[in-house]
Amino acid sequence: MLTLHDYLDSGNGYKARLLMSQLAIPYRYVQLDITMGATRTPQFLAKNANGRIPLLEFEDGRCLAESDAILWYLAEGTPFLPEGRMVRALVLQWMFFEQYSHEPYVATPRWIVKHLPADSPRRAELPERLKRGREALAVMEGHLATHRFFVADRYSIADIALYAYTHVADEGGHDLSPYPALRDWLSRVAAQPGHVGLLDQPPAH
Amino acid sequence: MLTLHDYLDSGNGYKARLLMSQLAIPYRYVQLDITMGATRTPQFLAKNANGRIPLLEFEDGRCLAESDAILWYLAEGTPFLPEGRMVRALVLQWMFFEQYSHEPYVATPRWIVKHLPADSPRRAELPERLKRGREALAVMEGHLATHRFFVADRYSIADIALYAYTHVADEGGHDLSPYPALRDWLSRVAAQPGHVGLLDQPPAH
Repeated sequence: MLTLHDYLDSGNGYKARLLMSQLAIPYRYVQLDITMGATRTPQFLAKNANGRIPLLEFEDGRCLAESDAILWYLAEGTPFLPEGRMVRALVLQWMFFEQYSHEPYVATPRWIVKHLPADSPRRAELPERLKRGREALAVMEGHLATHRFFVADRYSIADIALYAYTHVADEGGHDLSPYPALRDWLSRVAAQPGHVGLLDQPPAH
Repeated sequence: MLTLHDYLDSGNGYKARLLMSQLAIPYRYVQLDITMGATRTPQFLAKNANGRIPLLEFEDGRCLAESDAILWYLAEGTPFLPEGRMVRALVLQWMFFEQYSHEPYVATPRWIVKHLPADSPRRAELPERLKRGREALAVMEGHLATHRFFVADRYSIADIALYAYTHVADEGGHDLSPYPALRDWLSRVAAQPGHVGLLDQPPAH
């Protein structure tokens, strides 16, 4: 059985939990308190030298890090990763967009607001991060104004990757009201079969 | 013929140029001066709403953004993207590591030092960025201490993605002397057939 090393409030970990729910893949769940440095122990660093969750561990002990690489691995051979050289490259395009142009400006503000003390000096980062987050949300809105999903007119791991932090962007200070096409897309994603919520307790195994 | 929209000093653009050299793929090169906002014009935003180079444009007008998605597209079916579900996921793992944990802390300091005025307020970002860059370089060093290349013991697009900014990390203030295995790997990458340099002028077509 697969083991997912994760932290329940992580949108990056949620990507894997959502897809495994939709693929009906059973897995063992190991919760690590990243607010207490649980991913920087020698034991965990031996599994992922980069010290981050989510981490997917296989029965033979091999490990795979990076949320979007985990999505790709799990989705291979399923409808969540469509076929076609260009289509697959576009799935990756949106997943790299998510990690480079979206996550630091949509997920990180949420982290700062939700998990750091009210007097944290990192709050000074919020205006610039929210500004760049609005740029990323505007790129998504522009695409979704003429597309039902991000790639190939169907729900894929590109949507999962972008949904994970977008649907809770308000918790970091983002206002989604200027993005109607994006909000409609959030509803379409949430209506997919097998959908689970970010904080839903993973099944025990 | 493919068209690469790019800026010569971009390590992200260099990834595509290096692979296209090694695959002997001819392409048209369009240089855009990103220091003058050339990727934020309406004409360019119509090709890539995220306003970034590199951008690969196909003869039929379709476009593909994100350097590592471009690498994946070009390498598909070649030895630069090895077969195997886990191997491919590990290639992606290292490419997402590059974009999330490496590029902002190795490439961005170089950008600040090399392209912004000496009195730019962004210089204040350098200590924190260099600290996190050293963490990324240490992760690479740890892996390369026991591996010749990043994935499957062979040169792949994972190496190209990480080489692009690592080999010029010193230009942003990084000191590579504490990373001997990494420096040996840089030499192995530079010795691959068809290698070109970051600032080598692309062939005219």
